[in-house]
Order: sequence, then structure tokens, then C-alpha cells
Amino acid sequence: MPDPPPPPPPSTRAGPPRRGPLSGIRVLELGHFVAAPFAARLLGDLGADIVKIEPPSGDPVRQWGRQVDGKSPWWSMHGRNKRSVTVDLKRPQARHLVLQLARACDVVVENFRPGHLAKLGLDDDALRSARHDIVIAHISGYGQDGPYRDRPAFGVIGEAMGGLRYLSNHPPEATALPPVRVGVSIGDSMAGIYAAFGIMVSLFHRERHGTDRAGSVDVALTESVLSVMEGLIPEFAAFGSIREPAGARIPTAAPTSAYPTADGKWILIAANSDSLFAKLARLMGAADLADDTRFLGNARRVTNAAALDAIIGAWSRTLTSEELEGRLTSADIPNTTAFTAAEIAADPQFRFRKMVREVDDPNFGRLLHTGIVPHFPDDPGAVAWAGPEIGEHTDEVLCELAGLSPPEIAKLRGEGVV
Amino acid sequence: MPDPPPPPPPSTRAGPPRRGPLSGIRVLELGHFVAAPFAARLLGDLGADIVKIEPPSGDPVRQWGRQVDGKSPWWSMHGRNKRSVTVDLKRPQARHLVLQLARACDVVVENFRPGHLAKLGLDDDALRSARHDIVIAHISGYGQDGPYRDRPAFGVIGEAMGGLRYLSNHPPEATALPPVRVGVSIGDSMAGIYAAFGIMVSLFHRERHGTDRAGSVDVALTESVLSVMEGLIPEFAAFGSIREPAGARIPTAAPTSAYPTADGKWILIAANSDSLFAKLARLMGAADLADDTRFLGNARRVTNAAALDAIIGAWSRTLTSEELEGRLTSADIPNTTAFTAAEIAADPQFRFRKMVREVDDPNFGRLLHTGIVPHFPDDPGAVAWAGPEIGEHTDEVLCELAGLSPPEIAKLRGEGVV
Repeated sequence: MPDPPPPPPPSTRAGPPRRGPLSGIRVLELGHFVAAPFAARLLGDLGADIVKIEPPSGDPVRQWGRQVDGKSPWWSMHGRNKRSVTVDLKRPQARHLVLQLARACDVVVENFRPGHLAKLGLDDDALRSARHDIVIAHISGYGQDGPYRDRPAFGVIGEAMGGLRYLSNHPPEATALPPVRVGVSIGDSMAGIYAAFGIMVSLFHRERHGTDRAGSVDVALTESVLSVMEGLIPEFAAFGSIREPAGARIPTAAPTSAYPTADGKWILIAANSDSLFAKLARLMGAADLADDTRFLGNARRVTNAAALDAIIGAWSRTLTSEELEGRLTSADIPNTTAFTAAEIAADPQFRFRKMVREVDDPNFGRLLHTGIVPHFPDDPGAVAWAGPEIGEHTDEVLCELAGLSPPEIAKLRGEGVV
Repeated sequence: MPDPPPPPPPSTRAGPPRRGPLSGIRVLELGHFVAAPFAARLLGDLGADIVKIEPPSGDPVRQWGRQVDGKSPWWSMHGRNKRSVTVDLKRPQARHLVLQLARACDVVVENFRPGHLAKLGLDDDALRSARHDIVIAHISGYGQDGPYRDRPAFGVIGEAMGGLRYLSNHPPEATALPPVRVGVSIGDSMAGIYAAFGIMVSLFHRERHGTDRAGSVDVALTESVLSVMEGLIPEFAAFGSIREPAGARIPTAAPTSAYPTADGKWILIAANSDSLFAKLARLMGAADLADDTRFLGNARRVTNAAALDAIIGAWSRTLTSEELEGRLTSADIPNTTAFTAAEIAADPQFRFRKMVREVDDPNFGRLLHTGIVPHFPDDPGAVAWAGPEIGEHTDEVLCELAGLSPPEIAKLRGEGVV
């Protein structure tokens, strides 16, 4: 590696002014698809300066989901608050350029297949030679070591190995249909949140204990999923028992399920305490249900949940979702329809909390994004801009962080590096 | 409030020696059930000293799931690495005691209903009067403000409002069965991970910018769920389109689904690229499928996914899961069975990574726990002990952190406060 250029100004002073508790932190995103970009987005929402390296063809997620002129609304949100810099990592000159950028960053987050960055000359040691105290977060399907390390990572595969898929199903006696996918890339997103958490642990540790102590973080999609499986594994160890899918119900409480409505929706009702169940029975005009020996106490209600849910469902399907919501809420019984996008977008609580907010995007006009999680009331961060065009910030970033002149950038562009 | 006692030794020096990047941090958990205890457990796994306040009857989660002598294996994991201190928060003396403990902590994490701590005289201002730079994390169903703030929080309700439930279903034409619950309290767990992330953001901010700058963090279960719904909301805003459930499939790629096996299991196959699909067709002894005009290219495969999946399912159900796994893996086609607890516990990758590990628990002998996420290779934290008995550390903690003498503790115990 040639002599490095003089270091750029430290990230606490450089970059556009930003709000949020992470302003002053700079993150280099060597990410694509969902997990690493989501981790970086969480940090960017809170004020970190995110420099996203993209191939000249762009992150494929820019074309995921429905599109207008080849641009997806998802990208508007997934790429928000980021600066996009094109670098063709396959070019030999790319290595030096990435290391120059890493030199100006506090964090690198990446989700290539394990070992891929090493092949490009960008392993942890190389990144630390550019900046000794850089925090490095790796996200992968199965982790950075172990017998499955080199297997291709597919979200649906990892979610199934983590145990989520087996339980997302009706009991076998109810249907021959396969277990459902949750409908979103939940394993990738959970890995992204864990990575953001791990990055903050490392940044805190570096800040408290000195700049020679930055470590690396290793997040696996499978492990992120398995981590939320409650007592699944300890119970198996203690009893040899395998938890089975319970469909729309909760195995240990009743009644709580999704019930049909007259207008073809599903309403969730959680009346799984003696007092809530008695309220529900009265509301249904069947107060004697609460005295029915089959339904006396939670344990019996769980045993006879199928019969109980059939009775509740026969009642719920005579009423519209609006009627049900009104009556159940008046009776203080927890309930909600299964929200679609339309109900989420209109919900007064999400609007009040800015969890659904309007964002201007040159490609779409005014769009809706989901908000910033978690919420810091004193310094909530912001959506400063929507997902940028491919390479929109290449010149700006290469000049500001790598100290390159316009002719040097033009040369790299001519060579197909940026 | 009476004059506070002299402060205890700072948390960086007090407490039992621990490993992990968060050793030296102390967390006061005013939590119950899942979300706040899970957040604290993530911090404790990485070395933080967790002081869990419990009512004398214990956290109800100690009896969740299957039990031996009234003790659940889940608690063994959920409560690990924590010190349990009983305090009856309903007693007037409790307030002073909690503030004395808060004085010795860096973080408070709680998941009471919003406003409950204020009623006990333990709002943010009171906690900050005990320790001005304490980080406070609130977890609730809907957030600390807004029109739904005071509604009771039920996980299944929040998950449905966040949009997860609607999509966890088969398309309406496939079945009249209701949308499934994911089978675990995923909304609570996600809120817990977000809270752990937010706590680290605040601790980092405090460390970097000085001790007068600690803020509070406000995590809502509904918002944690909505945050992972990909392009759901921007797409609705751009097109007015409502994303519909896709059952076991992915709406934009095929073939990828769960297929039946001869031994009554489900196998996930992700052959959703042209080359993987051609490999699968050859493996099935039906190479001509790859040239079938219905299945040429991903777009046509998506359109004709039902027909394609019927063909794949007719093949898969002639083979056992073991035969299928062997053949698919040999052909480099991503696959896995939907792992149950048994398959997770036996998996060599989870074992190699210590994501499934043996832990000694006096109540169960040797038990299995899931491991520590995320993984810090240089300083991975540890499971120092399994979930403690109720109040196991009351005397130790009140002496060490609140400076109380044995007679003072005995008096509080006699009064029913601890």
C-alpha cells in the first residue's frame, strides 16, 4: 500500500450538519440488499453520516418492489439520509480508494459473503491499517466462522433454521398448507438491528476505553432469529419437548386469536383473562359463556379453545370490522383489525408519533416513510433526504473525505472505477 | 426526598468481575414479562451488571411455559446474568430505595404502562435527581405519548397494528383460516433489541459529550414492528397499493417456498434464479421444465408459481427430508427443513458458534441456552449464571449499592418492602 495521504478532518467536525444523537459519527456502508443497509439506515436516522459504496449499477434493492421509471419507493426509505458513492470493487484501484474512505470513518458495516472482502484486500487488518480504531460490523447468513460459513445466505433459509418458520403455521390437523413466510425479510431486518446495537456497543467501548480497543462485531441472520425464540431451546433441553405451531392462537392463553368480520377482514381480540372474557361474553349477549364449565378459567379455555373460537367467530362474522372495533373498544377489550398499509398510513397514533411521515422525494413527489426507531424525544434525528441517485455524492465525498481533486476523480471515472 | 446518602462507588469499579464489552456498566431493570427484561438480558450477556427489581411474588415470566416445581426453563435463560432484588413498589418506602439504587446505575430500563412510574414518584425527573446522567429507556405498546398511550399493550395487538399479522397468511383464495401468529412474542423481542440499541446510543452520547447530556429513549412495540415492513408504506403512498399476503412464497421471486416431504416435514427450497431453477429441474429429472414457456425467467415463474410449486411438491413428497437435503445440498441449491427445537439443538453450526450452549442451572441440572447476539470475537461476554431465585441478591445489592446494613435490610424485610 502506498503512503497514505494526510488524514481528512475528523468526522466530529466534517460532513454536512446533522441532527440526532449520532451526529459526528461516520459510517462506511459496504452493503447491499437489506441487512447492512438497514443497520446503516438506523444509524443515519439518528444523525450519523452514512457513506454508501455502490457498484456503478447500483444496489439491486433500488429495483425491488413496485417501481416508477425503474425506481422503487422502498429505496426512497431504505437509502434515506445516505450519501451514495459509486466504486467498482472489482477494479484493482478500488482497494486504495475504499481504504482512503475508511480512514475518515468510525465504522464499517458490510454484508458480503464471509471472506469476500478479504479477497478484495479489505479484510479487518487492512481496514485497521487505514484507521486503527475503526469499528467493523460483519453481517452474514451463518456467521464469520463455522462449518456453514461459506453457504449462500437466503433469508427464508435462515429464518427456517432459526426456528421461526416451523412455528408460523397452523397445527397439522387444521390444514395441509405449508408454513407461511412472515411476508417481509424479517431475519435480515433483525440482523440489521442487532448490528446497529453491536456497533454502538463497540463505539461506546472505544470511547470509554481508548482508541486502541475497537473490535469487530459478527452478526448472523440465523442467530438473530433464534435469539427471539423464547424458551424453545431450554424447554427442549429440560423436557425433550418440541414446541408445535398454534396457528392464530397463543398456546398458553385463551381466547386470543384473529376472528372473521362481516366485511371480510380479520379482527384480533385478546380477551385472555377471566375479567376480559366475562366482558366479551356479555358484549356477545352470551353472558352465560363465562359460567360454562368448558370455559371456566384460562386452563380450560385453552383446552377448549377451538370450541370457544368457533363461538366467538360465529358472533364476529355477523358484524363489520368497524362495528366490532367500536363495541370492543367501548367494552375495554383489547382489539384491532389486522392492519394493512392503508390502516397504518391513516392511524392517528402513528401519525402523532411521526412514525408515518411525509417526505419529499424528487422521484415521487411527496411520499410516506415510516419514522425513526427508537424515539429520542430530546434529539429525535430527522429524515434529511430521501434515497439518493446512484453515485449522487461520489464527487463530493471523494473530494471531502479522500482529498481527491476534480481531475483525479475524472481519471477514476474514465477508468470505470467510480 | 430526604438527603441522599453518600454515593456508592462508581459502577466502573463496583460489582462482581465480569467479562464482555459492557463490563463496568450497571443497569437497573424495572421490567417484567418480555420486552424490558430481554433488553437488559442482551446488555447483561455482554457484561453489564443487571439489577432486576422484582415484586416479592417474582416476575410472572418465571412461570411461563412448561415448568418443573413452578420454575420454567425459559426463566433460566431470560433471567441469566442478572441479580434479583425484591422490592414491593406499592410500599411508600420503595421509592427512596429505588432512587438509592438508581444512584448507582448508568441505565434504567422499564416497561410499565406509561405514567405508572410517575404515579410511584419515579418519573424521569425523580430518577435524574438521584443520578443526573442516568440513561432511561421506556418500552411500551404504543409509546410514551399520543392518543393510544394509555391503552393496554398486548403483543398480538401491537404486531397486528404494525402490519405483521396481515401479511402472515395465505392468500384469501387458498384458505379461510385466519392469519397465523408468528408463534413467539416477536414484537416484544424486537422492542427489546431496539431498546438495547437506544440505550447504547445514549451511553455513547453521554460518554462523548459529557455527563449532563444523558437522554431518554422511548420504544414502542408497534413501531418496532412497523420499522421492518420494508416498502409497505412508501409503496402504498406511491401507488395506493396494499401489499397482500403471499403464504409460503415470496411475491417477487419463484420458486421459493416450503414443500412437503415423505416423512411429514416441510423443506424450504430457494431456487429463485435461472441457474438455480435449471439445477433444480435437472435434479428432479425434469430438465425440460427449465425450457417450459410457463417458467422461462423469474417473471413468468412468479406468475405461474402455483403450477410450479405443485410440480415441485409432487416430487418432494416422494422423498424423505434427509434424502431431499442430501440431494439439494449436493446440487448447491439452498435448502433446509423448517427447524424444530430438536434440529436447532443438534445443528453443528449453532453448536460451533456456541449459539446453542450448555449452562448449569441448580433447578434443572445441565440445560441448553441460546447464545449471545451479537458475537464479539475478541470479548464475547459469557453466561455467568442462570436465572436466579426471587430476591437471591437482595441483601448483597442493598448492602453494596445502597449502603444498607443487615439490620436496616431486616427492618425493610419485616415491613414487607423487600
